[in-house]
Amino acid sequence: MEDFNEWISYRKNLINKELELYLNKINNFQSIIYDAINYSIFAGGKRIRPILTLASYELFDYDILIPMPFACAVEMIHTYSLIHDDLPAMDNDDFRRGKPSCHKKFGEDIAILTGDALLNKAYEIIFDLNSQKNIPPEKIIEAGRILATASGSEGMIGGQIVDLHHEKNNLEVLEYMHLHKTGAIINASSKIGGILGGADDEELGYLDEFSRNLGLAFQVKDDILDVEGTNEDIGKPSGSDIENKKLTYVTLMGVEKAKKLEKELTEKSISSLDYFGSNGKCLKELAKSLLNRKN
Amino acid sequence: MEDFNEWISYRKNLINKELELYLNKINNFQSIIYDAINYSIFAGGKRIRPILTLASYELFDYDILIPMPFACAVEMIHTYSLIHDDLPAMDNDDFRRGKPSCHKKFGEDIAILTGDALLNKAYEIIFDLNSQKNIPPEKIIEAGRILATASGSEGMIGGQIVDLHHEKNNLEVLEYMHLHKTGAIINASSKIGGILGGADDEELGYLDEFSRNLGLAFQVKDDILDVEGTNEDIGKPSGSDIENKKLTYVTLMGVEKAKKLEKELTEKSISSLDYFGSNGKCLKELAKSLLNRKN
Repeated sequence: MEDFNEWISYRKNLINKELELYLNKINNFQSIIYDAINYSIFAGGKRIRPILTLASYELFDYDILIPMPFACAVEMIHTYSLIHDDLPAMDNDDFRRGKPSCHKKFGEDIAILTGDALLNKAYEIIFDLNSQKNIPPEKIIEAGRILATASGSEGMIGGQIVDLHHEKNNLEVLEYMHLHKTGAIINASSKIGGILGGADDEELGYLDEFSRNLGLAFQVKDDILDVEGTNEDIGKPSGSDIENKKLTYVTLMGVEKAKKLEKELTEKSISSLDYFGSNGKCLKELAKSLLNRKN
Repeated sequence: MEDFNEWISYRKNLINKELELYLNKINNFQSIIYDAINYSIFAGGKRIRPILTLASYELFDYDILIPMPFACAVEMIHTYSLIHDDLPAMDNDDFRRGKPSCHKKFGEDIAILTGDALLNKAYEIIFDLNSQKNIPPEKIIEAGRILATASGSEGMIGGQIVDLHHEKNNLEVLEYMHLHKTGAIINASSKIGGILGGADDEELGYLDEFSRNLGLAFQVKDDILDVEGTNEDIGKPSGSDIENKKLTYVTLMGVEKAKKLEKELTEKSISSLDYFGSNGKCLKELAKSLLNRKN
């Protein structure tokens, strides 16, 4: 476990360093946007999605700098989605990770544009052949398509629409929403790592299964943390889902059944990695650590 | 002139047909987003940017279906930017092309997500190798990078930030704003056509010069139309810039000087096309028609 903590913090630091380079403030007329971008990107995210990209790549090759542009792009897209989700017209959240959300700090107009800028920047990075010279262009395009589809109206945005505009009164709609809203990007993060690493169809199938179940487990855990986490750990008032009458796995099935479901999904997810033998060790540890997380 | 009108409407119809195919409504939980996307995309846009992409490509090759995915992507990004610009937190415009703007019709949350969805869809289309099989992957990536940079914080979004948050009290800031806010995408639209058509560096240089001046001329014309156009033609109350104390070329230098500037910029723009000889005829006509437009 000591080893795993080192493994994960090494990757997290590397991702943060690369993000800093990509998002280095440019002093021009519009430099305020870089303040807002940096404020939001370095607000203490766990970097789970980009680590998933690196770790999935590492099933096939050791050089984690190769998938790094995509890993950073995934994190930028995740961050853009949080900024837009927090807006008054959406979830109207004043806090994010214990700090004022982007629109509270910089105003709504800048928050909308900061989200837009991060989304564009993600694609700008992917299209930079200079930093992508070790990947065949066809693979860049294949991985890019997976990212764009997972982010778009058939992926994350679709999930957010269902969250805002669909009566979520049963497990089917709840699962559909989560598979799209949080699941799609988690799924893409892992598959992108595989594609860049040269995974064949069978290997991609296992990564798909792994990350799909992991994404759902992740969401169930989020719902459990809302009732069991401390305000400090989760960065928002605990129990807010119940107070807001939100449909969650916990409000739908109770906390005990939700815990059981999360455990099952995590185990299913982990068993999909058996195919990769001992190469899958770190990815398995990552899945387990998500089950045990406190925020 | 009869010929040119046919030339342009043939391309416009083809673009609209392709956009319809790309944005065909999918009946799922989130289908409302397709209603909002289609409402905004088919609100009567002039399709100037995608026509620029096709026409720039046609300097080199006749098959306009080849640059079509990029042409559609450009129009989607243009439309996303209009939807977000109209939001209450931004320009707060209730009308767009004479119809209620997206957030007035569908609500602010859907409008934000519709913009996001169009931006993602643009990249999804570009990354679709099936419809892009006649373009070398390196060219797709090169053109994609130009599009992403033009759309992002160093391009269009940067211009919008300056518009919202910078005192625009002189020609330098005004020009900087327009070169980014409207100019960047017009510039990219043309260069992308050139890149896909196989333009060399010199040819790209001329296209760059052409479209940069065209973009500025386009904006000066917009400012002139605000005082000289009819409400019906421009789809919003005429004179609203003066009423809102907006700094424009007209409020800065008066309508006569602005007209002179627009004519100069258009002529400069057109002369950059001399290099292409008779192949540049349609692109020149396009630039002239923008000078004479009524909306």
